[in-house]
Amino acid sequence: MRASQFLIATIKETPADAEVISHQLMLRAGMIRKLATGLYSWLPLGLRVLRKVETIVREEMDRSGAQEVMMPVVQPAELWEESGRWEQYGPELLRISDRHSRSFCLGPTHEEVITDLIRNEIKSYKQLPANFYQVQTKFRDEIRPRFGVMRSREFVMKDAYSFHKNQESLQETYDVMHATYTNIFTRLGLDFRPVIADTGSIGGSGSHEFHVLANSGEDDIAFSDTSNYAANVEMAEALAPAGERPSATEAMEKVATPDVHSIEEVSQFFSCAADRSLKTLIVYGVQEEGQSKAPLVALVVRGDHELNDIKAEKLGGIAKPMTFASEEDIKAAIGCGTGSIGPVGLSIRTIVDRSATHAADFICGANEDGYHLKGVNWERDLALGEIADIRNVVEGDPSPDGEGKILIRRGIEVGHIFQLGTKYSEAMNATVLNENGKEQVMIMGCYGIGVTRVVASAIEQNNDDKGIIWPDSIAPFQVAIVGMNMQKSDRVREKAEQLYTELKALGLDVLLDDRNERPGVKFADMELMGIPHRIVVGDRGLDQGMLEYKHRRATDSEDIPVEQIVAEVSKRVSR
Amino acid sequence: MRASQFLIATIKETPADAEVISHQLMLRAGMIRKLATGLYSWLPLGLRVLRKVETIVREEMDRSGAQEVMMPVVQPAELWEESGRWEQYGPELLRISDRHSRSFCLGPTHEEVITDLIRNEIKSYKQLPANFYQVQTKFRDEIRPRFGVMRSREFVMKDAYSFHKNQESLQETYDVMHATYTNIFTRLGLDFRPVIADTGSIGGSGSHEFHVLANSGEDDIAFSDTSNYAANVEMAEALAPAGERPSATEAMEKVATPDVHSIEEVSQFFSCAADRSLKTLIVYGVQEEGQSKAPLVALVVRGDHELNDIKAEKLGGIAKPMTFASEEDIKAAIGCGTGSIGPVGLSIRTIVDRSATHAADFICGANEDGYHLKGVNWERDLALGEIADIRNVVEGDPSPDGEGKILIRRGIEVGHIFQLGTKYSEAMNATVLNENGKEQVMIMGCYGIGVTRVVASAIEQNNDDKGIIWPDSIAPFQVAIVGMNMQKSDRVREKAEQLYTELKALGLDVLLDDRNERPGVKFADMELMGIPHRIVVGDRGLDQGMLEYKHRRATDSEDIPVEQIVAEVSKRVSR
Repeated sequence: MRASQFLIATIKETPADAEVISHQLMLRAGMIRKLATGLYSWLPLGLRVLRKVETIVREEMDRSGAQEVMMPVVQPAELWEESGRWEQYGPELLRISDRHSRSFCLGPTHEEVITDLIRNEIKSYKQLPANFYQVQTKFRDEIRPRFGVMRSREFVMKDAYSFHKNQESLQETYDVMHATYTNIFTRLGLDFRPVIADTGSIGGSGSHEFHVLANSGEDDIAFSDTSNYAANVEMAEALAPAGERPSATEAMEKVATPDVHSIEEVSQFFSCAADRSLKTLIVYGVQEEGQSKAPLVALVVRGDHELNDIKAEKLGGIAKPMTFASEEDIKAAIGCGTGSIGPVGLSIRTIVDRSATHAADFICGANEDGYHLKGVNWERDLALGEIADIRNVVEGDPSPDGEGKILIRRGIEVGHIFQLGTKYSEAMNATVLNENGKEQVMIMGCYGIGVTRVVASAIEQNNDDKGIIWPDSIAPFQVAIVGMNMQKSDRVREKAEQLYTELKALGLDVLLDDRNERPGVKFADMELMGIPHRIVVGDRGLDQGMLEYKHRRATDSEDIPVEQIVAEVSKRVSR
Repeated sequence: MRASQFLIATIKETPADAEVISHQLMLRAGMIRKLATGLYSWLPLGLRVLRKVETIVREEMDRSGAQEVMMPVVQPAELWEESGRWEQYGPELLRISDRHSRSFCLGPTHEEVITDLIRNEIKSYKQLPANFYQVQTKFRDEIRPRFGVMRSREFVMKDAYSFHKNQESLQETYDVMHATYTNIFTRLGLDFRPVIADTGSIGGSGSHEFHVLANSGEDDIAFSDTSNYAANVEMAEALAPAGERPSATEAMEKVATPDVHSIEEVSQFFSCAADRSLKTLIVYGVQEEGQSKAPLVALVVRGDHELNDIKAEKLGGIAKPMTFASEEDIKAAIGCGTGSIGPVGLSIRTIVDRSATHAADFICGANEDGYHLKGVNWERDLALGEIADIRNVVEGDPSPDGEGKILIRRGIEVGHIFQLGTKYSEAMNATVLNENGKEQVMIMGCYGIGVTRVVASAIEQNNDDKGIIWPDSIAPFQVAIVGMNMQKSDRVREKAEQLYTELKALGLDVLLDDRNERPGVKFADMELMGIPHRIVVGDRGLDQGMLEYKHRRATDSEDIPVEQIVAEVSKRVSR
């Protein structure tokens, strides 16, 4: 492409209403423009990237054996009523009426439509498994769209839905999709993690989110520094420190601690680190029939750890959502305030976090206002009782798979694979005849990639103060050729044109900056637009038979002999 | 692709609610499924065709220098208010409200959005001309969607919009688009005509529609049997017959013709063909100030010709829309009823069609109830007066470009190129600075292709009683390999697999029908689905070193030696 024939719409100033770097750079580089809140037009530069992402996604989905379909953006209300979501789904579902006052919605997702389609097309277990995907425009009427295409209202998604006769088959396809997504994000050139995710209220038995690691991410991801293990912080299993619990060295002692309640106050009073004390949190249990009120449950975690309510709720016997007991109920049951509770001599159900069981000579509340105990030791001063994982992981924890230590980084969710089970197929009566000639509800999986979001997240991960730095696989152009003084020097113009022709012939995406602009303007534009490989053609270099090459990430340029440049650049572009 | 891993969803019965053949065959072949009125899901087979059409359209648009963009499906009302179309556009424009009660519509077209985008991005005449296109989902809330994807509510369109500093530049791009569309429809393998079209009420000065010729088309296309000339029947210029007008041979004579009014009655009464008489139609002229009523105008055409009201209206002085005078007004002005009018001695403005001026010894009304004149001759019995083209062309007319004769066929409009002029850029103040540093409104063109409709129209043009017959360029699969008794014969299975691998390696789209079905079922499915090239692998043929090849259009199959089949089939697939 010649820059003179391409809409280069770079902007010098950082747009005021763009909060995150990808939004700023997509506007500044001329990739997108806002049409209305949460609605963006893609300019030629941006669309080139979007199409490359789409192509990689399609190639890998096809390779996985999934079949591409295309379902309408506009969906009839009837199907959503069948699944129950017409009522359940919040105002993000944009409900509309056609000229005959029939109800439709703009599809934020296509479970209902695909389930309807497949229940009519697939009648026998012999046709299973089958996996269908589409790359389609979707709409979610976000209350506060923001961050540009990262959280827009209209967006492009790749969504896939698989159908199975049993759980084993679903697991097989799920594993294939896990591998496919790994291939896709690897080819996209992104630093990502497949992350064990909560299946949440939707049910189902397996779910991974694929996160691009970036400081601006909205989720905390815990992952091993050596293995592939990764999980949402809320989901990551927290292990006890390695090795045996240290032996007791102190005697238990009751200490008057006036005005000492929080862990910070305890640490300060006793001049010790937070991990030397245990905190005991009191929540409500499940009220049994005949009980006048809900029982209380004590949850014990180390002073430097945080209670994880999802994990606690899953243990059973704890009220959902998990709720801290009132000061009044605690006083009545235990006889002291929240700041003085400890596990020693506690008569209610007590659950101790794994790491807390490794503490020795620890400090805790004495169950008496104004007093703490120090030098406390498990199995000497109190029984261990019920032990469970009830805390969030922290950096440095051992990885649950036994390999390496936990790191925690921010991630942007760009993909999600999910074992749906029979949620939709049961509600919509999507059945097949099984081996015995009986009707059986199909089991489903679903697999999404936020295609437009991938573009933004790639920028979040790859930028510097000059602009975007594209991975070669999705760069709008892989190579930029900048001619110095091209309008006046025939030699420069001819060499630039020749390189342009030769590099294109090798299948590279090349932008020849033939604009009548100062070199500084051209350099700044190419850097802002993130073209990874740049060749400068100038009279001075040609005098010495050299051309200047610079990778977008390199600090300095290199001189490469004219006759080697095409082969050399071609070699450096990863394909 | 292996048929066992592909959703083959063929249907034997013709669906009851599908009126046209393409709709029937798209359902029967398993290309599409109806989701709701005017909304269709594309199954894998159909989508393969749609994507091939899109690819050809994109490649040719890119080659033309147009730049691809993507604008949202959902568009804000404000822009449509600026252009005036929020009020003007009928209920086909689906108007919706978001959660904040702001008004939007589902875009049926994108003139407003692109004009808004470009007025912000292009500031100088130096950036012109520029042509932007997208391939995007559009929505028109048709009152009566029908014919499947031929007239659906949600559809895929390629729309392009060009911007210019002057009319010459628009004309240049318009000509490039004309050539580009010709390339596109040629590559799609369709029999089509670029047709001179009416610019209608939208204004503008140039327009061509691209029609696929098919009996089920909704438009009548007049085109030359030897040259490229083609036009909508309403637009096609009607010439007089070639040569001089025959000489008069009869004397003018007044004949009593009781109860003879229509041309049919005249022909019967005088035992002559309809082209021997002239009919005179009386319409209202434009009422001038001071006139108590509108004047009458006589329009004279040959008995076998039809008046064209669009042409008549364009002459000036005739009321728009053209309206036939009442019996009462005619009686008052001429003294007879409509069935007895003729041009001889008529005192009102009289416009004579070119072909009517070539009649000799003709019959016409005598301007006296119950009488006709016969043996009438121009310039002897009456003056020629005002001559114009005021009739529809008919088959056999000389082509207006002087080459060949006119044929008339039905056409399906699949593309439209249009010189918009300043309709949108003026309303929306889309200006650039011109050479003199002054603001100047841009001139625009627009260029559309109904991508989903192309698929249906290709079927309308290419089918037989067994199903679809795809052109090679857009066939979902170019080659089908059918193994006879594949499950039992190792030899057949191995040969079929080998051919499959070898043909795929040559870049062909191959469907290996490896299903455990009877040969008859497989043949019927492959024919219904329209795969153009079929190879049958069977034990009997292999015994003789032969494979059976059949083109979908051929009546009989041919035997081709095993060792030649790959090269031979590859040669026959046009690429």
